[in-house]
Amino acid sequence: MNYRSIIILLATLVTSGICLAQTDQPVIIEDFKPSTLNQPGQQYPQVNSQGYARFRIVAPQAQSVSVSLGLGGRGGTTLTRAADSSWMGTTTGPLDKGFHYYHLTIDGGTFNDPGTLNFYGSIRWESGIEIPAQDQDFYALKDVPHGKVQQILFPSKSTNTSRRAFVYTPPDYDKNQVKHYPVLYLQHGWGEDETAWSDQGHANLIMDNLIAEGKIKPFLIVMTYGMTNDVRIGGLRNFDIKPFQTVLVDELIPYIDANFRTLSDQPHRAMAGLSMGGMETKTITMTNLDKFSHIGLLSGGTFSMDDVNKTPGFKEKIKLAFVSFGSRELGSNRGGRGFFGGDPRANADTLKQAGINSVFYVSPETAHEFLSWRRALRELATLLFKD
Amino acid sequence: MNYRSIIILLATLVTSGICLAQTDQPVIIEDFKPSTLNQPGQQYPQVNSQGYARFRIVAPQAQSVSVSLGLGGRGGTTLTRAADSSWMGTTTGPLDKGFHYYHLTIDGGTFNDPGTLNFYGSIRWESGIEIPAQDQDFYALKDVPHGKVQQILFPSKSTNTSRRAFVYTPPDYDKNQVKHYPVLYLQHGWGEDETAWSDQGHANLIMDNLIAEGKIKPFLIVMTYGMTNDVRIGGLRNFDIKPFQTVLVDELIPYIDANFRTLSDQPHRAMAGLSMGGMETKTITMTNLDKFSHIGLLSGGTFSMDDVNKTPGFKEKIKLAFVSFGSRELGSNRGGRGFFGGDPRANADTLKQAGINSVFYVSPETAHEFLSWRRALRELATLLFKD
Repeated sequence: MNYRSIIILLATLVTSGICLAQTDQPVIIEDFKPSTLNQPGQQYPQVNSQGYARFRIVAPQAQSVSVSLGLGGRGGTTLTRAADSSWMGTTTGPLDKGFHYYHLTIDGGTFNDPGTLNFYGSIRWESGIEIPAQDQDFYALKDVPHGKVQQILFPSKSTNTSRRAFVYTPPDYDKNQVKHYPVLYLQHGWGEDETAWSDQGHANLIMDNLIAEGKIKPFLIVMTYGMTNDVRIGGLRNFDIKPFQTVLVDELIPYIDANFRTLSDQPHRAMAGLSMGGMETKTITMTNLDKFSHIGLLSGGTFSMDDVNKTPGFKEKIKLAFVSFGSRELGSNRGGRGFFGGDPRANADTLKQAGINSVFYVSPETAHEFLSWRRALRELATLLFKD
Repeated sequence: MNYRSIIILLATLVTSGICLAQTDQPVIIEDFKPSTLNQPGQQYPQVNSQGYARFRIVAPQAQSVSVSLGLGGRGGTTLTRAADSSWMGTTTGPLDKGFHYYHLTIDGGTFNDPGTLNFYGSIRWESGIEIPAQDQDFYALKDVPHGKVQQILFPSKSTNTSRRAFVYTPPDYDKNQVKHYPVLYLQHGWGEDETAWSDQGHANLIMDNLIAEGKIKPFLIVMTYGMTNDVRIGGLRNFDIKPFQTVLVDELIPYIDANFRTLSDQPHRAMAGLSMGGMETKTITMTNLDKFSHIGLLSGGTFSMDDVNKTPGFKEKIKLAFVSFGSRELGSNRGGRGFFGGDPRANADTLKQAGINSVFYVSPETAHEFLSWRRALRELATLLFKD
C-alpha cells in the first residue's frame, strides 16, 4: 500500500473514529453537568458521570436537528422537540473518555453547536465535547508553574509566505537566560492544524505538570501546520510530503534554532506526530537521521525491521523509536494490523530484540482520538533526551 | 450617569454597532471574492469591491435563514432559497470597511456561518467578515520580521486560578537578551476577551509593521481578560472594577515584570482599552498614577478638566492622554457627546491648553468597530514612550 493510500485511510479513520463505548447500561444517571469545553455561561451540552452526553439546541422552527459525533454513517444522536420548542437528545450510550469532535445537522445543513468551543478538525472548525477521564489530572490546569505557548510567524521562501507555528517553552525558559533546551517537533493529524496539540491536546499543560512533578527534563515543543497544498480532500489525494519537509527541515528548524535557546544538535532534536502526522514524522526522520534522534509515531504507523534495514544508520543514530495506539485501534478489523505496516506490538518487540530502544504504548479504552494522544505525549515526554 | 450605566450603554453600543454605510449605490458590481476570514477552502461569505457582502448557507429543509450583522433590530440580510436549495443573499448596501461580527438565524435559532472563522464577541464566538479597507496595508501580514504572541498562564490568588494573558514581544526581543522594554496593557471591549486584540485587531501585525518602518520604538503589549465575574448580562449589571483591578495591578503586572525583560517603572508603563476596556483603563490609571504614565481611551470615554482637577498629580505624571473614536460614533445622537463625559474633541483641546499632552484621533468612516481600534492603536503606538 502506497503512502497516499495510507494517508487517505488515516483521514477516513479520523472522520469515522469510533467514540461510543459499550452500550449495555440502560439506566442513565441524572447527574449531567455542562461540558468543560462549553462557551462561557452555556449550560449545554452536558455530560453525566457515566459518559453520556446530552444536547440542547434552540431552533424553534427547525424540521430536524441531529448530532454527529464522528460516527460516520453508523450513529449519532437525533434530537427531539422539547416542551419549550428547543431540541434535546441524549446519546444512546456512554462515550469514550476524552475529547470528541462533533457537529449538528439542522434541516440538512452542517453547523456547530453554539454552546461549545470550536476546534479545528476535519478541515473545519468543529464543536468539541469533553468526557472526563479517570486520569484527567495529568492534562489539567493546575496551580504549578506554567510555560508559555508562543505564536510565531516564520519566513518561508519555499511557500512565499509567513507561516505560523506555536512554540511551547517551559516555565524556567525565561528565568534562566543562558540555558539551552532540546526540541520536539510535534505534528497534528489530517484535517487538523497547528492549534490542535495545544487546544485539543493540552500539550502545554501536560508538559507543565510533568515538569512540576520532576518527571521530565524540560524541552521545547514546536507545532506547525503539516500541509502546504490545498487542504480540501482533492488536495489530500495529491498529498506530497516534499513541500512540507522543505518547510520543516530547511525553514522552520533553522528559524527555531536562531530565535530560541535550543540545543541544535541531532541528539537533542525529536519529531513525533499523530495519525497523518505520524506518517509525516516517519518519512521525514528516516531521510534525515542526521537531524533527529528520537521519533514518535502516535496512531500513525510502526517501525518494522524492514524499515530499519532499509535505513542505513538507524541503529546507531536513533535513540528512541516510540510507537503508540489507542486500544480500540488494535482490534481485529481496525488500526495497527491492517494498514499500518504490520502488527505494531510485534514490530516493536522485534526492534527491541535487535538492540533498538523501541517502546510500544497502548492507551486503555480509547480510539483514534485525542485522549490516546494526550497519554502518548505524556509517555513519550518521559522518554525523550535521556542521555 | 454612573459607571455601571455607562458600561451597560457601551455594551448596548457594541451589540447594536452601526456597520452599514450609505445605501445610495443601486448597482452591485459582480466582482465578489471570498472574505479573507473564511475557513480554509470556503467560498462564502464573499465581499465585492464596493463592500457588499454575499452569504450562502446550505440548509435544504430550513424554513428561514437570515444574517444579523450587528444591526440589532434595524436591519440584517434575509437569505432566499436558491435553485440548488442553498440559501443566498446580499446586503442591501455596502458595509463599513473593516471587521464585522455576525451570526445566522436559522429557523429561529442562533448559529455561526460554517464558512467563516469565529471571533469572541458579544460573550460568544461569533462569525466574522472583513471588508478590505483602503489602508489595510498597516495591519496586513507582510514579509517583515515578526514578533511573537505568547500565551501565558499567570497565577491569580485573588481569583484562585491560573488566568490567561497574551503578550506581544517585538521581533528583536529574543535577539537582544539584555534589552528591556516598555509595556502597554491593552484591554478588549465588552463581550470580548483576551483573544480580541490579536485575532480581530491584528495588534501584533500592526506592531510588526510599525517597527519595520522605524515608526515606533519596540514595546511589549499585554492583553488579558478584563472581567472576573460571570460574563453573562446579569453579571455585567453588577460589574465591579475592583476585582479586575486587583488581577491587573497586583498580580499580572508583577508577573510580567518578573518573567519578561520589562522597564518596570511608571514612565515605561501604559494602559489603553477599547469601549468597556477604555472605561476600565480610565478608572484604573487615574487611581494608579504611580504605575501608569501613558493612557489611551479608544471609543471608551474622554478626559475632562474635571477629571484632571479631581486627580492630584495628573498634570505631572501623565505623559499622554490619548482619546479616539470612529467618526460614526460622533454623530449628534451617538457616542462621544451623549454619554462619554462631554464632547471628546473639546475636552481634548481643553486639556492641551492646560499643558497636558492630550491627543484626539478620529478614525474616518468607521463606527464602534475594530477598524476604528486598529487605527487608534497605530496612532497610539507612535505616541508612546517618547521621552
